[in-house]
Amino acid sequence: MVERRIPIAVQEAVNKVMEHRITGEREKVSILNCNNRRLAEKISAKHNIPSFDKSPYDGFAVRSEDTQNASSDNPVEFEVVEHIGAGQLPTKTLKVNQATRIMTGAKIPSGADCVAMFEVCQTSDRNNKQYMSLKRKMAAGQNIIKEGSEVKNGELLLPEGTIINPGVKAILATFGYNQVEVARKPVIGVLATGTELLEVDQELVPGKIRNSNAYMIASQIEQAGGICKYYGKLADEFDPSYKKIKDVLEEVDILITTGGVSVGDFDLMPDIYAELEAEVLFNKVAMRPGSVTTVAVKGNQLLFGLSGNPSACYVGFELFVRPVIQHYLFNNNPYLKRIKATLAADFPKPNPFTRFVRSYITYENGMVNVQLAGMDKSNVVTSLAHTTCFMVLPGGTRGFKSGDQVEALLLNDPIGQGEF
Amino acid sequence: MVERRIPIAVQEAVNKVMEHRITGEREKVSILNCNNRRLAEKISAKHNIPSFDKSPYDGFAVRSEDTQNASSDNPVEFEVVEHIGAGQLPTKTLKVNQATRIMTGAKIPSGADCVAMFEVCQTSDRNNKQYMSLKRKMAAGQNIIKEGSEVKNGELLLPEGTIINPGVKAILATFGYNQVEVARKPVIGVLATGTELLEVDQELVPGKIRNSNAYMIASQIEQAGGICKYYGKLADEFDPSYKKIKDVLEEVDILITTGGVSVGDFDLMPDIYAELEAEVLFNKVAMRPGSVTTVAVKGNQLLFGLSGNPSACYVGFELFVRPVIQHYLFNNNPYLKRIKATLAADFPKPNPFTRFVRSYITYENGMVNVQLAGMDKSNVVTSLAHTTCFMVLPGGTRGFKSGDQVEALLLNDPIGQGEF
Repeated sequence: MVERRIPIAVQEAVNKVMEHRITGEREKVSILNCNNRRLAEKISAKHNIPSFDKSPYDGFAVRSEDTQNASSDNPVEFEVVEHIGAGQLPTKTLKVNQATRIMTGAKIPSGADCVAMFEVCQTSDRNNKQYMSLKRKMAAGQNIIKEGSEVKNGELLLPEGTIINPGVKAILATFGYNQVEVARKPVIGVLATGTELLEVDQELVPGKIRNSNAYMIASQIEQAGGICKYYGKLADEFDPSYKKIKDVLEEVDILITTGGVSVGDFDLMPDIYAELEAEVLFNKVAMRPGSVTTVAVKGNQLLFGLSGNPSACYVGFELFVRPVIQHYLFNNNPYLKRIKATLAADFPKPNPFTRFVRSYITYENGMVNVQLAGMDKSNVVTSLAHTTCFMVLPGGTRGFKSGDQVEALLLNDPIGQGEF
Repeated sequence: MVERRIPIAVQEAVNKVMEHRITGEREKVSILNCNNRRLAEKISAKHNIPSFDKSPYDGFAVRSEDTQNASSDNPVEFEVVEHIGAGQLPTKTLKVNQATRIMTGAKIPSGADCVAMFEVCQTSDRNNKQYMSLKRKMAAGQNIIKEGSEVKNGELLLPEGTIINPGVKAILATFGYNQVEVARKPVIGVLATGTELLEVDQELVPGKIRNSNAYMIASQIEQAGGICKYYGKLADEFDPSYKKIKDVLEEVDILITTGGVSVGDFDLMPDIYAELEAEVLFNKVAMRPGSVTTVAVKGNQLLFGLSGNPSACYVGFELFVRPVIQHYLFNNNPYLKRIKATLAADFPKPNPFTRFVRSYITYENGMVNVQLAGMDKSNVVTSLAHTTCFMVLPGGTRGFKSGDQVEALLLNDPIGQGEF
């Protein structure tokens, strides 16, 4: 007798998994090794930016009161008393009709309250002294970037969970974060099941296929911010499989198995969850592909039983495992970005369950289109290589036409979203 | 006298740089270490997929001719002569009214030409033999995935230059690519110029700022697929700077310097290019920010002189350095993806030069909107952290309004495009 399983809705399945989410620990890493890590501390300004009044241009710092009578008919002459580049410090306080030649980014000398751009100044030399004359009136504060005008000391700049991209790195460097606190990467164990599986370096023999899911998942784990530990494959025998899984659970934060979750004669995972006394959260989801996706929990460890079918395995990872990893990394937007898009081809199949269709996004005249990555049989193998989103077709619908508005979940969106 | 430079159009500047592009070398890496690398070989199918006729379901393999008289009134009984799981090989050739119990993915036994799903079969035991009865007629080939129906041996699956994502990894594993030929990562040297610069671990002192550009660029280089070697900063003195740059050029494929390319009194790069006898391709581009971006070439090495201003530096990297790296990595779509999008806020500034505005993309009802990441002064420091695209406003325009259609260059698009 085949076991009858009751499918639950995808949203409910995601919720059940996320009830068991945990946040990870923090660790310090060098700024040199923090690319694409996620912040485990808030980053606040440690000083004003700029940290001194500075010049936005090459030019001459002067006292605005000395320019009040300047005009094209009445140039005002200044003695140039100092010449400072960025990083050099002015040493002289300006007195009446004195100017300091100043370069972009340099500190405004004391006494000065404005900067005349180089292009509007006439320079001359006389008696070994330098002079500059100006034909226009300047206002106090003109062409000066005031201390703290960009950021005030203490201002919150980046929340916990922010991914460290080049712009974030610039902020860390600016404020002297030589070391930065990031989320420790979760260690995700991967075990494949199936007597039919060969490893990648084994010769193909009749009746067998190479294990591609484990390598694919390793790559998905790395993209999601985790560390993959691949433990090879389980034979379709209970005792060694049970022992192996029990041992692996000692070494990982999360366990993923592929295959073995159907109701077939050789599908061992249900019995292994029972023997482990793990609580099975669900063993059937109202979705295609991946309806056999099973998730169990033991203590604070999630055990993901993904389908052995590559597409189902891929979808199961992105829908259920990825948000758990993202939450572990302090990301407040752990879910795939969901957008509306225009379907670019007919999709005639009915959808008894919610369907996640391998797709990619294109853009046309300000609109977002969703293209199917693997509709033809001949594309099955390459479709995942081209997938950048899943088109989501609700269960109970009877097919869609080119031009219909549909939903899509973006796999590479840098922001994500807070709810599924 | 300030040197007058003649600005060239952005497109022309990009073309001039790309005239000096080179493709890199190839190296073999393990499938375990190939994430996000780019293929330097075409990947073709090394065998048929599936490599044998297989069952898509759990069920019974039978001879369709034996089912021709089956109906709900007239069930046909089969003797079950073998029971095979995926990865097990059938050993028996089916004779009249014999069936093989078969699991999903298993090889079809010889003699059989169709599979009856488990759900439509009645099983029974008699005299230590297993029987199955079927109430429906089956067609030859029904529920059989034919050898080679997904991919034929020799079929081209992925071109050179493809980035190795999880789906590509699955293909590599499927066909036994334990090692894969990828593009060697270019080594990009980074040198900062400017007496005002402190390193990230130095205490802030008056008049100085920390060097944030080098750390930002290191991250941009890594994202683009290169290896960054940071050589520290040059003092604003000619001789040691010249010597350092000459030495660094011995060790890198491409050199990036930040700062020192203006016409200010302390800007040494123009003289260094002259002393190196490097050909300056341009030293002024009709763009904001980054108009001082300078690119020179010596032999087959490109020397990028990016602005010292963080935003200008960031833009200069993405427009000019990134496509060179992408081409080096065999990517036929080396340029940033350019799309049309709807401006989500007023942008009142006139644009004497083409302007690249730090922005990010949002989606609304099937439309793509472009949001400004750093319009307020107070956002200057954090704007690059939120930037996912550049809005492109053509030179000679006088400002744009919310709702206008504009162009945007996407920084994270997985596909990119073939022309700028």
